[in-house]
Amino acid sequence: MASSARRRGSRACIAGIGETVYTPRGGIRDRGELALACEAVLKAAADCGLAASSIDGLVSFANDSSVPWLMQESLGLPALRLGSMVWGGGGGGCYAAIAQAASAVESGAASYVAVYRSLCQGQGQRYGQGYDVPHGPAFLDPFGMFSPPLMLAPLAQRYKHDYGILDSQAAAVALAFRDNASRNPRAVFRDRPLTLARYLEARMITEPFRLYDCCQENDGACALIVTTHERARDLKGRPVSVLAAGQGAEPGWGSGGLGSHNMPEEYYRSGGGRHLAERLYGKAGIGPRDVDTAQIYDHFSYFVLMNLETFGFCGPGEAGRFVQDGHIGWPDGSLPLNTAGGHLSEAYIHGLNLAVEGVRQLRGESTSQVKDAEICLLANSASAAILGR
Amino acid sequence: MASSARRRGSRACIAGIGETVYTPRGGIRDRGELALACEAVLKAAADCGLAASSIDGLVSFANDSSVPWLMQESLGLPALRLGSMVWGGGGGGCYAAIAQAASAVESGAASYVAVYRSLCQGQGQRYGQGYDVPHGPAFLDPFGMFSPPLMLAPLAQRYKHDYGILDSQAAAVALAFRDNASRNPRAVFRDRPLTLARYLEARMITEPFRLYDCCQENDGACALIVTTHERARDLKGRPVSVLAAGQGAEPGWGSGGLGSHNMPEEYYRSGGGRHLAERLYGKAGIGPRDVDTAQIYDHFSYFVLMNLETFGFCGPGEAGRFVQDGHIGWPDGSLPLNTAGGHLSEAYIHGLNLAVEGVRQLRGESTSQVKDAEICLLANSASAAILGR
Repeated sequence: MASSARRRGSRACIAGIGETVYTPRGGIRDRGELALACEAVLKAAADCGLAASSIDGLVSFANDSSVPWLMQESLGLPALRLGSMVWGGGGGGCYAAIAQAASAVESGAASYVAVYRSLCQGQGQRYGQGYDVPHGPAFLDPFGMFSPPLMLAPLAQRYKHDYGILDSQAAAVALAFRDNASRNPRAVFRDRPLTLARYLEARMITEPFRLYDCCQENDGACALIVTTHERARDLKGRPVSVLAAGQGAEPGWGSGGLGSHNMPEEYYRSGGGRHLAERLYGKAGIGPRDVDTAQIYDHFSYFVLMNLETFGFCGPGEAGRFVQDGHIGWPDGSLPLNTAGGHLSEAYIHGLNLAVEGVRQLRGESTSQVKDAEICLLANSASAAILGR
Repeated sequence: MASSARRRGSRACIAGIGETVYTPRGGIRDRGELALACEAVLKAAADCGLAASSIDGLVSFANDSSVPWLMQESLGLPALRLGSMVWGGGGGGCYAAIAQAASAVESGAASYVAVYRSLCQGQGQRYGQGYDVPHGPAFLDPFGMFSPPLMLAPLAQRYKHDYGILDSQAAAVALAFRDNASRNPRAVFRDRPLTLARYLEARMITEPFRLYDCCQENDGACALIVTTHERARDLKGRPVSVLAAGQGAEPGWGSGGLGSHNMPEEYYRSGGGRHLAERLYGKAGIGPRDVDTAQIYDHFSYFVLMNLETFGFCGPGEAGRFVQDGHIGWPDGSLPLNTAGGHLSEAYIHGLNLAVEGVRQLRGESTSQVKDAEICLLANSASAAILGR
């Protein structure tokens, strides 16, 4: 018992959350990404009553321009024991950042780690346009894969073809998330209702992605404070447990679509995320049926469908029907998804705002609250986390 | 006993090392940084008899252009469970990369992690010239801090002034390392003997740095395989223990010299690395007197002097005399340093080739072998590691 209690005490949790305002691209002009990153971290610290000067770890991902040393100087942190910029883009990096923070506090490498992401596409690179990736000019550009929609469309197109996914099924994802956004005052598209007709009439970005299948380009930042349960006892509010978190990539994922669509079925569809899912469910000691709500990385609606399968909520090719049958809607679905509106309708803070919403759900504070939510999955095929109340 | 044995079995070690050829800048034209990174990783795997396909973690640092997904595709790794690009530049990143790999294998997040760095200044950015750092144009350029020598010279200048460091004492660092390089067939400057007269006659780069105080710009790559002792038993050769490894930064370090030279004495001189040193010595259960050889991050000779003090080999301001008294030379010094020639004379692979040399020392395979070496310190003020035989 003592050992179990000690184990529980040293386990990682998310004690605080913080968000700046989220605006359409270019909406924030009076301060830069760095100032927003600091604002989000300070809000997350204040949320749990932590003195910001106690933060001794800073973890972001995907080449956040607000690198740890600038954050340290700007926040006036006296000592940094972990500064990390996790590789893996948004989807492969965001929940891996939580995993690194959790490992750090569990091993004693750091005590209070701020996981943050600041992303102003109005100030820097627009992800919907030309996109800088290392070796992109050599390996991606010759195939026309200049930006994420172009890189990822072939995977979605094959998935759609292989399983006969209907336009209306992809639309159901976008519509459900927009509906959630309508109740979330922080959502960029809170006042922009969407109908199936409007979805279908919208312009094609690159097949099969129509406009409303694609996440937003926007400005904003958010942050989490990760610490141990033992330390969180001295803070404000109720911490949310990190039951499991990790990173994983198998051929066909990380390549940004480079040839993935030509790979065997398992790989093109899930990037091997099925093994990541098995590993995390095993560590948390739960299965898909125990998940009350999931926040699935929705850079494009089709990847929500694929990840419903990857994370075991339905079988291969069944996600279209699963969504069509109303499982993902709030409040009546069996698995309400992206309850703040997701990347499609709340904001695209590269996955981390989905984690903030996951914490809100387990605190009972979502604007689309799932009743008695105890387990929340944060999922991309290349990084994921399971949070528990 | 069983628990202690298990603890020992799950502790991290370095099982394999690999290096490409090291050449002056521009010396490698027939293959790119990515190919070199792969070559180094494959050599490190072969060195310990590991099938490369077993590698499930890839960790580099300082925006290595050979990002994990490209490495995964190029090496044909079936599953990646950890891909990390550690923040912190060379000095703050290189031993932190070892720390991340060690944490990963100790926690079970991954089994065999390749830590690698490929750096061809003939193909990409020249560190000695204009230097891209995030927010550099806003915060560094107005003060003329366009590149590492310019960023770091003010710290060295103040240190030199405060403690009356002599030119001949800084020279003693450069001369000792060049002497070590003369015995190392891999060293870029193996055939370029240096004399005090030549050191003093060389042009000033930026006060107090003369040409031979500065590390090289060169091409090459190196890698380590990190795993647990338990797994290493099934591999070839004798693994070297990672007794402690970590990252740390306090105000005045990470900023690349931004205002650091105006900080209180402790900070400008060590970047707060003293606390990192205390932490790692404590974890390893040793003190400076137990260290048989150290490989100290020598981007500039003056920082070797400062870190001799930071890591407790002598008191504040005493390093000039320590070096002058012959302590760092091979074979007769009490603490032979950078025994392969270091960044100044072997190659500048951003700190990681110093780790390779540290492993060689503890295997008894250095070309400037320290007799019966059992403990090797790898040190920068912002990341460090202690290796044991």
